[in-house]
Formats: sequence, C-alpha cells, structure tokens
Amino acid sequence: MKAPIITDTTLRDGSHAVSHSFSPEFVASVVSRLAEARMPVIEVSHGSGLGGSTIQQGFSTHDEWSLIEQAVANKGGSKIASLFVPGLGTRPEIVKAAEFGIDILRVAVHCTEADVTQQYFEQAKNSGLGTVGFLMMSHTQPARVLAEQAKLMESYGADCVYVVDSAGALVPESVRERVARVKDSISVNVGFHAHNNLGLSIGNTIAAIEAGADQVDGTLRGLGAGAGNAPTEVLVAVLNKMNIETGIDLTVLMDTAEEIVAPVFKYPQILDRDNIATGYAGVYNSFLLHVREAAEKFNLNPVAIIEELGRRHAVAGQEDWIIDVAQDLKAKELVK
Amino acid sequence: MKAPIITDTTLRDGSHAVSHSFSPEFVASVVSRLAEARMPVIEVSHGSGLGGSTIQQGFSTHDEWSLIEQAVANKGGSKIASLFVPGLGTRPEIVKAAEFGIDILRVAVHCTEADVTQQYFEQAKNSGLGTVGFLMMSHTQPARVLAEQAKLMESYGADCVYVVDSAGALVPESVRERVARVKDSISVNVGFHAHNNLGLSIGNTIAAIEAGADQVDGTLRGLGAGAGNAPTEVLVAVLNKMNIETGIDLTVLMDTAEEIVAPVFKYPQILDRDNIATGYAGVYNSFLLHVREAAEKFNLNPVAIIEELGRRHAVAGQEDWIIDVAQDLKAKELVK
Repeated sequence: MKAPIITDTTLRDGSHAVSHSFSPEFVASVVSRLAEARMPVIEVSHGSGLGGSTIQQGFSTHDEWSLIEQAVANKGGSKIASLFVPGLGTRPEIVKAAEFGIDILRVAVHCTEADVTQQYFEQAKNSGLGTVGFLMMSHTQPARVLAEQAKLMESYGADCVYVVDSAGALVPESVRERVARVKDSISVNVGFHAHNNLGLSIGNTIAAIEAGADQVDGTLRGLGAGAGNAPTEVLVAVLNKMNIETGIDLTVLMDTAEEIVAPVFKYPQILDRDNIATGYAGVYNSFLLHVREAAEKFNLNPVAIIEELGRRHAVAGQEDWIIDVAQDLKAKELVK
Repeated sequence: MKAPIITDTTLRDGSHAVSHSFSPEFVASVVSRLAEARMPVIEVSHGSGLGGSTIQQGFSTHDEWSLIEQAVANKGGSKIASLFVPGLGTRPEIVKAAEFGIDILRVAVHCTEADVTQQYFEQAKNSGLGTVGFLMMSHTQPARVLAEQAKLMESYGADCVYVVDSAGALVPESVRERVARVKDSISVNVGFHAHNNLGLSIGNTIAAIEAGADQVDGTLRGLGAGAGNAPTEVLVAVLNKMNIETGIDLTVLMDTAEEIVAPVFKYPQILDRDNIATGYAGVYNSFLLHVREAAEKFNLNPVAIIEELGRRHAVAGQEDWIIDVAQDLKAKELVK
C-alpha cells in the first residue's frame, strides 16, 4: 500500500482543546520538532481557521499572524497549511496568509455546502497556494452526496478533498464506503480526518487508507476538539507495523507528544460519557467545551444538551444554539 | 452481521490497572449494573486468574473467593467467568470455582503452549463449566500457528478459542488474518481480546467481528492492563451504529463506566509514550506497572526497559525479567 501524506493538525484542531491559547513560542517549538521528524504538512491557525477568533468561536489569546509567522520561520522541509471557514475567513485573509508564506489552504464547509467555496479556491490558487477541501460532518450524508460535493470542489480547484468526521460518528464500514465513493468520483487526492469519540480515530484512519485515502490527519497525543483526533505518533507507529513507509521519525514524534504537547492539555482527553455521547449523537466536536460551560451554568447533564443538539442536527457555526438548548431544557425542567 | 457475545472483563483485566485491589462491595456493585445492562458474560478474578495473587503477579487486597461470591450473588441473568493460567492456578481451584457457582472457565496460555491445557479443560468440563481458551501474545505467531493451537484447545474441550492481543500490538489486517484463519480451522466459537496500545482496541475488535469473531471482550472505560482494553460501552455504541443488535443497555453501561468505574482509576489510561512503546515493541501489557516501578527505582526511562523486554521476547509469567533488564541497563549506563 502507498504511504498516505500525513498532515499534523495539533496546532489547528488542538487549538480547540486549549481554548485557542497557543503562544508563538509553543508554535515555534512544535513546528520545529515536527519538521525535524519530517512531517509532510503542519496545519496552524485558530481551531476554526483564519479569522476564527470571534466571540462565537472563542477569542485567541495571541494574534494568529504571529503564530503563522513562527510556523513559517521554523517549517524546515515541511509545508504549512491553514484552515479557512468561509464567512469566518474572507478573501483578504487568504491573500495575507499567502504573503506570510503558508503553502496550503484548507477550505472547510458543512458537507452539503461546497458551492460556497468557489471564490476561495480560486483566490488560493491565484495566491499560489495548494488547496484542500474539507467536507465537515460527513456522517450526516450518504457517500453519493459527498461524492457530488467533492466533484464541485475539484471543479473549483481543490487538489484534495477530505471526508471529515467532525463528530467522530463514523465506523470503519461507513468510512470505507464514503472514502471509496469519493475516490471513484474525483481524480485529485482524497483525504480523511478522524475524531475519537467512538474510539475509532486510528481504526477509521486505517480503514480510510485501506479504502484508498491519499491523505490523512493526526494530532500529537490526539490533542483536538472534543474527544480529540488520531494521535499522529500512534498513526505512524501503526503504519510502520503495516510496513507502509512514511519517512517520518517516530521517536521524535513520540518524544514531542510526551514532552511538549502532553503538558498543555487542559483536561484529559479520554472517552468519557460526554465524548461518547457526542459521537453517538453525531454532534460537532468543537461544541463540547461550550456545552460543558452551559451545563454548569444551567446545572444540567451535558449529555442532555448533546442529545438535543443531535436531534436538531446542529452544524458547525451554530454554537449559539448551545445556550438556546440549555435554556429550553432548563425551562422544561422548571415546568415539571 | 450476527451480534457477537460480549464478555465484560472490567473485574478481571481491570484488576491489573488497580493493582488487584477490587473490594467485594465494588464487585457486587459493578456486577449488578452489568447484569441490569444484560451483559452476557462477566469475568471476575485476579488479573492473572485464579490463584494469581502471588509475589510475582502482585497480591490481591481481598480474598478472590469473596469477590467471586459477590459476583455470583449479583449476576442476575448474566454468566460469570474466571480466568485461569495453568501453573498459577491448579485443578483444585477449578473445582472450588465451580462450587462457588461460576459458569465459565477461561484458560489462558502463551499462544504456543496449548498442549499444557488439556487437564484443565477436562477438569472444567467435569465440573460442569463452559470453557474458553485464551491464546495470549497472538501477535508473536503467524495465523497458521494460532490455528494449530486453537485446534488443540478444541480437541481438549474448549467451547471457544480467543485470539488475544495481550500487547496491543496487532493492526486490523493482522487481526483479520488471524481470526479468519482460526475460524476456518475449528468448529467452535472464535473470540478476540484487544488492548489499546496502538489506539486500535475498538478498531481491531470491529475488524475481528467483520472477520467472523463470535465473541469479543471489553472493559468499562477501558480499565485494564497497560493501555487498557476496548471500552465495553464504546463497543456497544459502535455495534448499535452498525445496526448489530446486542440487546445490551447502552445507557446503563455508559453511566456505570462514568459513575462507578472512572473513580477507581489509579492513573489516566491514555496513549502515553510508555503505552505506545509497549504495543510497538510487543510487550505483555500487565508488565507496565512493574516496569514503571523498576524505572523509578533505577532512574531509567521506562521505554528503554520496554524495548529490551521486546528484544528478549518476554512472555507472561516472566515478570522477574523486568528487574533483571533494569539492572542490566543500569550497569551498562554506569560502565559508559
């Protein structure tokens, strides 16, 4: 089997898990170790992408351009990617990111909304960037719909389209089906991005690779929104066991995860009841910290809020629903 | 796909993770909740099985017969199993366990040593017990050898033979190959028991089920030796997502994991460097706590001890090697 191109997104998806508090020094330190380990791509930005530092998504403690500056300065032979969510980010940010020296823009939308991405892919290409399309919450749509959306992104200029399991709600068979169908439908690369809510971040990533995925994501120690991501160091260990040669230095990854990333965790990223409920209900992982805050404020069980968000099919960007749901649940409780 | 028979082994494999300190009250509480959730089989004994309370394996804080007594008293419609490692356990313990009312004996040996199990399977059958054979450290042998060993166990009276990934060293393709080969070679059930060192406890268990496994193991919250096991509540959630109907109550499992089991963890069971190194080097998971003690005593990096144990192909029962290895490594360090 061909080795997939790995993107380490500790410094982007992991941003959610630390409430967007990465410092320029931390970014410099992690990027230089990842470059030493020969990581192909390193993603750096606010967890919700360029311009993501807002009241709705959570403000960053440090200006994101200072983080990107440090990433580019320390990237060695690796490429730097940034996430971009249309609406939170606008075209001027793409131009600016290219001027700062990033290599790849990853444009993320809900998996039925590819049609809003055209101008951003075009801007990225005009700015000389590599391009990736991110179909978020892929568990909500059948493989056929994802394939259609991927084709749109390809037509706009995406070099790769990812099936993104934002809620950690997919199982190996549903990953294989989606990745294989998208792979059959486009001629550019197919990627897969996992979350660990159902304990399948590594299992699903391997299933995706077996189904033909060309690119996959990980984060050191699994640091990421909600239940976290596929731990990059574990992914490389498993690929080594499968005799799939990535060229990445496993020891450097394991040491960086243990010595630099583990100490910044704000909470242990384990499969607790809230995380499992999130995957089971199919709720966007980056909602979790906001859900826990609302649950505490309104004295509710977080699982009740998560289940109701699942029933309402909340998508990324609807973080304001969390408070609505909590208020509604509390009101119902008081009526009883 | 047919639903697998699930055995929850929180109260056996989890015993390693709490240094064999389960109390009769704790056992009663967990067993009654598991019975309420309609868990088919519940395993209860010292982590190393009947008679496992020794200086080498670690002494239990409570007499194991008092634990088994509580398990049987609270089992409801579930069956109670106990692990049995020949040499640590002897035939009188099988007779006694049957008298105490257990339903199933699980006889565990290194995966090339099935020939020592005959008298124990025969004793178990004579005592009216169901029987399971456990081929430990299955990553060390090719599928062909496991199939031969499984056939021996079947001929001695095993009702089921498990491929046991004691080191958490297998990947989905190596699980599928082993389970399918054993399945083809025997007419009784095939089982799979996972550990999570490479983040694959759930992924490998699903791969095993897809390859034909009739029985699989889990522990609440993944509590188990080393990196822990497949979390039973996550496994049931995933099977529900796959529309495989187990009849088990997921909510009761999730609540029991969160409210009763999570509080007894002595250390967070996460994929840290030591756990990944254990799976990568293929070292028996229940060695880890002993390795960490030795590393602290001799001021060594646990990973160095783990890697050397891997090179020496240590198997279950060779816990005394840990101190030898630590002493050797220290001596080499001092010579330098």
